[in-house]
Amino acid sequence: MTGQSEVDCAALDRDDPLAAKRAAFTLPDGVIYLDGNSLGVLPSAVPARMRHAVETEWGESLIRAWNEHNWIDLPQRVGDRIARLVGAAPGTVTACDNTSINVFKVLAAALSLRPERKVILSDSGNFPTDLYMAQGLRNMLDKGHELRIVEPEAVADAIDDSVAVMMLTQVDYRTGRLHDMKALTDKAHAAGALAIWDLAHSAGALPVELDAAGADFAVGCGYKYLNGGPGAPAFLYVAARNQPHVAPALSGWMGHGAPFAFDLDFRPDEGIGRMRVGTPPILSLSALDAALDVFDDVDMTALRAKSISLSELFIREVERRCPDLELASPRDPAARGSQVSFRFKHGYALMQALIARGVIGDFRAPDVARFGFTPLYLSHADVLRACGILQEILDTRAWDQPQFHAKAKVT
Amino acid sequence: MTGQSEVDCAALDRDDPLAAKRAAFTLPDGVIYLDGNSLGVLPSAVPARMRHAVETEWGESLIRAWNEHNWIDLPQRVGDRIARLVGAAPGTVTACDNTSINVFKVLAAALSLRPERKVILSDSGNFPTDLYMAQGLRNMLDKGHELRIVEPEAVADAIDDSVAVMMLTQVDYRTGRLHDMKALTDKAHAAGALAIWDLAHSAGALPVELDAAGADFAVGCGYKYLNGGPGAPAFLYVAARNQPHVAPALSGWMGHGAPFAFDLDFRPDEGIGRMRVGTPPILSLSALDAALDVFDDVDMTALRAKSISLSELFIREVERRCPDLELASPRDPAARGSQVSFRFKHGYALMQALIARGVIGDFRAPDVARFGFTPLYLSHADVLRACGILQEILDTRAWDQPQFHAKAKVT
Repeated sequence: MTGQSEVDCAALDRDDPLAAKRAAFTLPDGVIYLDGNSLGVLPSAVPARMRHAVETEWGESLIRAWNEHNWIDLPQRVGDRIARLVGAAPGTVTACDNTSINVFKVLAAALSLRPERKVILSDSGNFPTDLYMAQGLRNMLDKGHELRIVEPEAVADAIDDSVAVMMLTQVDYRTGRLHDMKALTDKAHAAGALAIWDLAHSAGALPVELDAAGADFAVGCGYKYLNGGPGAPAFLYVAARNQPHVAPALSGWMGHGAPFAFDLDFRPDEGIGRMRVGTPPILSLSALDAALDVFDDVDMTALRAKSISLSELFIREVERRCPDLELASPRDPAARGSQVSFRFKHGYALMQALIARGVIGDFRAPDVARFGFTPLYLSHADVLRACGILQEILDTRAWDQPQFHAKAKVT
Repeated sequence: MTGQSEVDCAALDRDDPLAAKRAAFTLPDGVIYLDGNSLGVLPSAVPARMRHAVETEWGESLIRAWNEHNWIDLPQRVGDRIARLVGAAPGTVTACDNTSINVFKVLAAALSLRPERKVILSDSGNFPTDLYMAQGLRNMLDKGHELRIVEPEAVADAIDDSVAVMMLTQVDYRTGRLHDMKALTDKAHAAGALAIWDLAHSAGALPVELDAAGADFAVGCGYKYLNGGPGAPAFLYVAARNQPHVAPALSGWMGHGAPFAFDLDFRPDEGIGRMRVGTPPILSLSALDAALDVFDDVDMTALRAKSISLSELFIREVERRCPDLELASPRDPAARGSQVSFRFKHGYALMQALIARGVIGDFRAPDVARFGFTPLYLSHADVLRACGILQEILDTRAWDQPQFHAKAKVT
C-alpha cells in the first residue's frame, strides 16, 4: 500500500527542477546519504578529470604543465567559480589551504586593521577549529587580545566598541542554526568592528551574498556541499575594499607579486592573490574544479527551496514517527541551514545502526544525530525512506547492540 | 661511431644497482628529465592508487572512509615513511600543508623557545618563500625580531649569542651548494640557538640524518625528489626533545588531542600530531603515499653514489663541450646536492631550446640553467645524450630564436 506521504513525495520529486542533477553524482547502491554536510558525494566528472591531471598533465607535461595546463592560475579560476556561489565579485575569492589556516589568515588580517581593539567576538556554535586558531593567534600575538565566546543568540547584544572582529560560522555545525549575516555584519560595522564569516556549511548549501552583506572576510570549505573530495582545498574571501590594506601574516611566495623573480623581500601581489601562500595542491584543486561543474547552471534560490522542502519533510516525518527524538535545530526553516539535528541519549549507537542500514548521517558529541540535506543528489523519496528506517530502528531498539556502541576513531 | 664516453656510460649503467627503478616511473617518450628537483616524475603506482582513493574510498565509502580506510592516520603514516629517508625517528615527522606554512609553524615554535633572543639567521641562498614567511611572522609578532640574511659561506661566522634561530635550506635551490648540517647545527647549539633545516632539495636526493645532526626542526617538500605530484603535501619534523614544549601557533582541530570531542579550548595532541592544523588533503596525500613505495627498498648511500656519478659526468662533459657555460655549482661533489647549475647570459632562451628538444631542466633568474639528477629514473646514457643536445644547441646558436625568448608565466 502506498501511503499519502509516498504520493506527496513522488509528486514533489516529479516537479523537482534539480532532479536531473542526481545523474551528475556517483552514489553507492543502497545508500541514502545524509552526510553531504560533512563530505560531499563524488561528482561523476571527477574521476576522468583526476586521471587527466595525474596521467596527462603531471605524467606527460611534467614541469611544463604549469604553463601548458595553466596550473598557476588554477587557485584563482576555482576561486572565481566559488565566488559566484557566495555572492562575491570575481577577484575576491581564492582557493587555498584548509579552512583552519584560512581562518588564521583572515583573523590576523582583521586584527591588524583594528590595532587599538582587543576583542575577538565569537560564539559557542562556531566550529571548534575556528576558535582554536583564534586561540593560537591570540597567544602568539601576546598583546592582550581576548577571545570572547558567547551563546549564538547573544552575539548581537555582545557587539560593542571593544570588539575588533566578529568571527562567526554562519550555519552552526551541530544544530544548523543560521545567523543573519547582513544584520550582524551591519551591527558589527556600526560598532566599528570587522566581520569574518565562515561559510563551511553555507557555500553550495544556500544563497550567500557576501558582497551585499558587506562582509569583510570569509572562509569556507571545499569538501562539504561543494563536493571537492576529502580534505579538498578551502577558500578565502577578502572584500575588495580591504584587499589593498592587508599585509599577509602568512606571506609565502605564491602571494608575492612576482614569485618567479625570486627576490629576497616579500612584496604582496595585487588583490586576493596575496592571500595565497605555498605551491597550490594541483591534484586536489583539479578535483574541486571538476566538482564545481555541477553548480554551473544551478539556481541557488531553487536549491534553497528544495533544501527546505527536504528538511521540512524530514522534521515532520521524524516527529510523527519517532517521539523519543528531540529536534535540536531551529523549527523555522528561514533560521536553519541545510541540515537537521535531533538529540537522542543514545545518538551515537543510533547513528551506527542507521549507517549499517545504509542511511548515512553523523554524530556530534554529546548526543546529536545530524542529517544533511543536499538538494543536488537527494530526493523526497530518499528522505522518506530514511525516516522509515529510522523509525524501524527505534521501534525495535535495533541500535542497542554492542557493535553500535563501539566508538570509532572518527565520528 | 661509439665514443669512449658512450662505452663508459654503458658500463656504468650496466652496473647500476638502481637501474631497475626506472621501471617504477612513467616517463614520456623522447624526454630526458633533468627537473626532478622541481617536480618529480609520475611513479607508476600513483594512477591506480588515485583511482582507488577517488572511486572506491571517496566514491563508495564516503564519510565512512575516515575509519574504513584509516584516512585519519594517513598524515602520520606518510610522515613515518618520510622520516626513514631523512634520518628521523618514527613519530617525529608528519605530512601536512605546504613547505611555506610549515616554515611558519616551526619558526614560530622556535622563536617561542628562545623568547629573549631576537635574531633569525638565514642566508641569501635560502629559497625566497622561507625568507618571506619569516618576514611575515616577524612583522606580525612586532617584537623587534631581525631577519639577518648573510651569504651562505658566512653563516658559520654569523652565529652568535644574539641568534634565536638559524634557519637554512640545506641545498641551495640555485647552485646546489650543500650546507654541512651537523657542523652548523653544532655551532648554533653551542651559541644557544636553535636550528631549522629546510630539506626541499635534500629529502629523497641524498642521505640526511636529522636526529644524528641534532636538528631542532625541519621542513621539506613532497613534490620534488619524493615524486608526490604537483603541490603535494609537505612535511615537518620536530625533534622528539622539543615536542612537549611546542605550543602550536597554527593550532587547528587536527592538532588537538581529541579533535572529535569538539571542545571549545585547544589542547595539543601528544607529540608531532600537534603540528597538524586542518583536515588533511586525502587525495594528494594518497598520491604521495603511493609515490613513496618506490623508496621502500632504496639504499640512500647507493642513491647518493649514483647522484654524484651522474652529476660528475654532466659537469665533465658540459665543460668539455660547452665553453660558454660557467659552472655555478660547487665543483666538489661532497659540497653539492643532486643538481648542477651553469650560468649563461642567455640562460632562459637556452633552457627553452633544450626543452623543445626534450631535455627538460629549468631556469632561475637572472642567468642560471639548472639541471637536477634523480638517480631513480636517470641513466648515465641519458645524461650523456643531454650533453650532446646541449652542445648542439650552443654550437648552432639554436637558442637564439624568437620563440625561445618569449617569457612564460612560470619559469
